[in-house]
Amino acid sequence: MHRQFSLQPFSRHYSHSTNPFLDFLEIEQPPESSPDSAPQICVAPEKRSDLLSVLSAYKNVHASGTLHTLAFVTVNDYLYLLRAVSQELSVLGRKAMYYLAAAVSDFFLPRQRMAEHKIQSGKGSLHIEMDQVPKILKSLVDEWTKDGYIVSFKLETDQSLLIPKARAALKRYGHQVVIGNDLHTRKHQVLFISPRVSLVQNPDIGVDDDSAFVESWLRIDTTPNSSGIVKEIEEDIVAELVRRHGHWTSGRQL
Amino acid sequence: MHRQFSLQPFSRHYSHSTNPFLDFLEIEQPPESSPDSAPQICVAPEKRSDLLSVLSAYKNVHASGTLHTLAFVTVNDYLYLLRAVSQELSVLGRKAMYYLAAAVSDFFLPRQRMAEHKIQSGKGSLHIEMDQVPKILKSLVDEWTKDGYIVSFKLETDQSLLIPKARAALKRYGHQVVIGNDLHTRKHQVLFISPRVSLVQNPDIGVDDDSAFVESWLRIDTTPNSSGIVKEIEEDIVAELVRRHGHWTSGRQL
Repeated sequence: MHRQFSLQPFSRHYSHSTNPFLDFLEIEQPPESSPDSAPQICVAPEKRSDLLSVLSAYKNVHASGTLHTLAFVTVNDYLYLLRAVSQELSVLGRKAMYYLAAAVSDFFLPRQRMAEHKIQSGKGSLHIEMDQVPKILKSLVDEWTKDGYIVSFKLETDQSLLIPKARAALKRYGHQVVIGNDLHTRKHQVLFISPRVSLVQNPDIGVDDDSAFVESWLRIDTTPNSSGIVKEIEEDIVAELVRRHGHWTSGRQL
Repeated sequence: MHRQFSLQPFSRHYSHSTNPFLDFLEIEQPPESSPDSAPQICVAPEKRSDLLSVLSAYKNVHASGTLHTLAFVTVNDYLYLLRAVSQELSVLGRKAMYYLAAAVSDFFLPRQRMAEHKIQSGKGSLHIEMDQVPKILKSLVDEWTKDGYIVSFKLETDQSLLIPKARAALKRYGHQVVIGNDLHTRKHQVLFISPRVSLVQNPDIGVDDDSAFVESWLRIDTTPNSSGIVKEIEEDIVAELVRRHGHWTSGRQL
């Protein structure tokens, strides 16, 4: 699930702003031996190998039907879609992992309070009152997909809030992992926070009980490699989650 | 000038969401005669001719240096850039046309009122007070580029406001043309509004004086042609403005 017009898997490597694909296409004029044939388009030699690997992966995923993308526009669309998708996926039981990385806004403007017409600017400043977006993680965990492995994200700008807020979310919703990240360092480090014991069965545990939670940092080196490629932290996050989910479905400890 | 990450000239035809370029690239395996050579990437035959025309135009514009793009992020960036660019271009005098199509917000949050940290959502609803964006068209017309031909845009959702608001803008700023459009019909019709006499020299003219303004609709047919291409209204808007600007620089009537 992705917001309409956000970057997409595979093509995201070729953002129109930072790496436009038109830049590495070349026009090859027809050979002198057949001047009437049409010019050909080819990929610049130095870009071929990178593009070939992205394009092969893209075609494989499409051919195998293993990627299904769903676009949303409003936060309401997102919530309805998430309910429908998690209810469908609940047949997978513990085998389904929910990676809830969409940075959905915390506040929204309810449709009944939206202006019908463009707001006129002649009248000075503009006051807006936005409502809190409903916290649907509770319903996801308790109702829609009771057995799924659920990963939520917590982004902060004040790093001292990361652990207390992540623990509070685990306690409130009873799910498996929170990935905490700081806006300024999120590309090279994230914090995995999970409960050591069932917080649902032990409701008296407080968020300051260090023995009840496990925290571990995942850090990567973001220096470009010899081909100029910068590693993306999501690669390691997903590998670590697959490992944890595997242990969890087999009933073993982390 | 464009907002960072907005669609760009030329590549906009290949939006990642609606017409992703990876879809029309094909992988050609090496011939059996030389199985060790690398696979080639080529453009699907049915897409070649469209892409060739976009790519040729893109390469021509880059080679000739006739397109200079400047990105902005905040409304402040936009205002500062517009001032700098119009001051530079003012050496062109009447030969410069300013096509101010950027849909800059009417309201903004001043930096001194921005939260330092992420706004916490535990405290109920969120109140925001936004200030009006300064109307810089007055400075553009009067100070930065006194002789330029200036085209501004007026978008409304209530069509009955279009003419009075466009006329008020012409009277307030003293520039040459307002292009009025309605959010719902803007892809197939726009209204050109311009003064018939100098509003600066005749400050007593009111916005309801029909003899002092000229309005004319520009409409296009948006049925796809035989190749499935839908005409874009900007093509005709620009042609009409070039014609008007030509008359204006030569001192003739419209």
